[in-house]
Amino acid sequence: MRFDHDTLPQRVRFASAAAAQNLADEIKELGAARVMVIAAEAERELAHRVAAQLPVAHWHHEVAMHVPVEVAERAREQAAAHLVDALVCIGGGSTTGLAKAVALTTGLPIVAVPTTYAGSEATNVWGLTEHARKTTGTDPRVLPRTIVYDATLMLTLPVDLSVASGLNALAHCVDSMWAPRADPIDRALAGEGIRALRIGLPMVAAEPGGLDGREHALYGAYLSAVTFASAGSGLHHKICHVLGGMFDLPHAQTHAVVLPHVLAFNAPAAPDAERRIAAALDSGSATGGLARLRAQLDAPRALRDYGMPESGIAPAAEAVLAAVPPGNPTPVTPDNITGLLRAAWEGAEPR
Amino acid sequence: MRFDHDTLPQRVRFASAAAAQNLADEIKELGAARVMVIAAEAERELAHRVAAQLPVAHWHHEVAMHVPVEVAERAREQAAAHLVDALVCIGGGSTTGLAKAVALTTGLPIVAVPTTYAGSEATNVWGLTEHARKTTGTDPRVLPRTIVYDATLMLTLPVDLSVASGLNALAHCVDSMWAPRADPIDRALAGEGIRALRIGLPMVAAEPGGLDGREHALYGAYLSAVTFASAGSGLHHKICHVLGGMFDLPHAQTHAVVLPHVLAFNAPAAPDAERRIAAALDSGSATGGLARLRAQLDAPRALRDYGMPESGIAPAAEAVLAAVPPGNPTPVTPDNITGLLRAAWEGAEPR
Repeated sequence: MRFDHDTLPQRVRFASAAAAQNLADEIKELGAARVMVIAAEAERELAHRVAAQLPVAHWHHEVAMHVPVEVAERAREQAAAHLVDALVCIGGGSTTGLAKAVALTTGLPIVAVPTTYAGSEATNVWGLTEHARKTTGTDPRVLPRTIVYDATLMLTLPVDLSVASGLNALAHCVDSMWAPRADPIDRALAGEGIRALRIGLPMVAAEPGGLDGREHALYGAYLSAVTFASAGSGLHHKICHVLGGMFDLPHAQTHAVVLPHVLAFNAPAAPDAERRIAAALDSGSATGGLARLRAQLDAPRALRDYGMPESGIAPAAEAVLAAVPPGNPTPVTPDNITGLLRAAWEGAEPR
Repeated sequence: MRFDHDTLPQRVRFASAAAAQNLADEIKELGAARVMVIAAEAERELAHRVAAQLPVAHWHHEVAMHVPVEVAERAREQAAAHLVDALVCIGGGSTTGLAKAVALTTGLPIVAVPTTYAGSEATNVWGLTEHARKTTGTDPRVLPRTIVYDATLMLTLPVDLSVASGLNALAHCVDSMWAPRADPIDRALAGEGIRALRIGLPMVAAEPGGLDGREHALYGAYLSAVTFASAGSGLHHKICHVLGGMFDLPHAQTHAVVLPHVLAFNAPAAPDAERRIAAALDSGSATGGLARLRAQLDAPRALRDYGMPESGIAPAAEAVLAAVPPGNPTPVTPDNITGLLRAAWEGAEPR
């Protein structure tokens, strides 16, 4: 047993139908008097409701995917012009990302109110896009001081998007078992995340208006972000990154298709991970448990259904080989990674 | 699902036989040039070995149990006189406690190198004793920035003390399942702690010189401190506190005797905790798993063996009733708490 683990300082306030009150309490505790609320146009009404009790100095509704530098610059200018002393972001990953971009240069504290399972709120990772090129980094200033989770804010997230996003979170947890910086603490929290998603996602699918499933899925998504930020990218994420970049495949579906193949690939060589995943899935085996969950959720099965050409398997295998993370349990060879990609492409049984 | 959870910022560097190097790296990263090393006389030699690479401005060997105020004052004076810019504590709970007392008034950063399973290094709790009266509090300044764990430093801890201390840590984990501020994150980490102690303690007992058992026990003890600090004192700790205060019973043995009785008392009314504890003990039931572990470790069984009089059961029951933590799964009544205490006193089967 040999590891380094950095635990990041953050408060989580988790309570359904309590976002407005919890948010007001946190802003009061920060002593903030001039808040900038960041929320996309689509969440304007929701944001005004949730932030109704705050001393708002500026409402900021210009949010764009991948945080373009010019959007970040304008937000920073507004923060300065309005003498803002705290940032509140209400929305998904792009909204949280914009608040982080402002905090990165100003040091302003962030309180995040997520409305999706994106998970950015639980990490110290920031990202900015300039000339279609994304720059990322980590900085303690961008980690939100507090996350206010309220599962009632997720009720409008469509079921198919919730399930795809939940399977993406599940993939983060599974990959955290063998990622380069994975340690026992990451594995324990990843196991808890898998357990929560295993319970929550079928409930969301079966009863989209029910809170219990949404709460479990949200809690699991939070843990997936915590463990992924700590453990780093494992084989699964490297594969999905390669496939997404080469063939412009949809993000969540790619994760959902690839995950069982990577699990079947690594589990035999990672007995501790296998045992933890199986237990979290309440199953005799990790692969069996995931297969059952995927069947319950009618999860995507084949990359060819999303536009990947068969001729893409060979170049993808080559690109993955060049990006294999250190310490992956099963050694990756041209043969076995080609086999994995072919199985994911055609929707074959994972093996 | 409704909870607030504060995650405290801390780095853990866990590696056997690497304390000196990891400690030197951390002091370098802090940029410290005038370190005060705190270690009791008994650990003087060990401390000089582990801190050999540091820029030490002052070696401080006056350490006393429960951190008397006058001992803390002298340490603070030395820190000021030597223009110290970082504190390193090498030892058990009293040594860590003294470093915390200095950090409390000076804000100096602490790097802790524990040599027991005390766990103080993982909490923001400080304690000081004046005129035989202990004052405690929490403060972010007393939380060590980094813990350097090295299981080889535990090899000299005698087996019986290791097992007693490990069972105390196990009790912290179990009690964290239903303590007043317990949340799912605490429960997940407590489950991981129970698992590590279940694996480690029998190995320590069977092979005191082996590292694997010591590592698991140390890792479990760390998690027990993290979860206990977050979740607060549950029924088990309130009972042990009452018994310790009334009858001057030995700390670790009292915990070891009482734990199975509190588990049997609460488990039927706490199905999630029961399931988590059973899984962590790799057993079909929480109580069965604990009974098996206790048998392996030949754990203490009866409070009367440690000097508690039978006539003490009634006043102890009264005192516990007045201190029952809010939200205990099984409602505590004069009858059932008397039954619990009598069973623990005579060493009966938990029920």
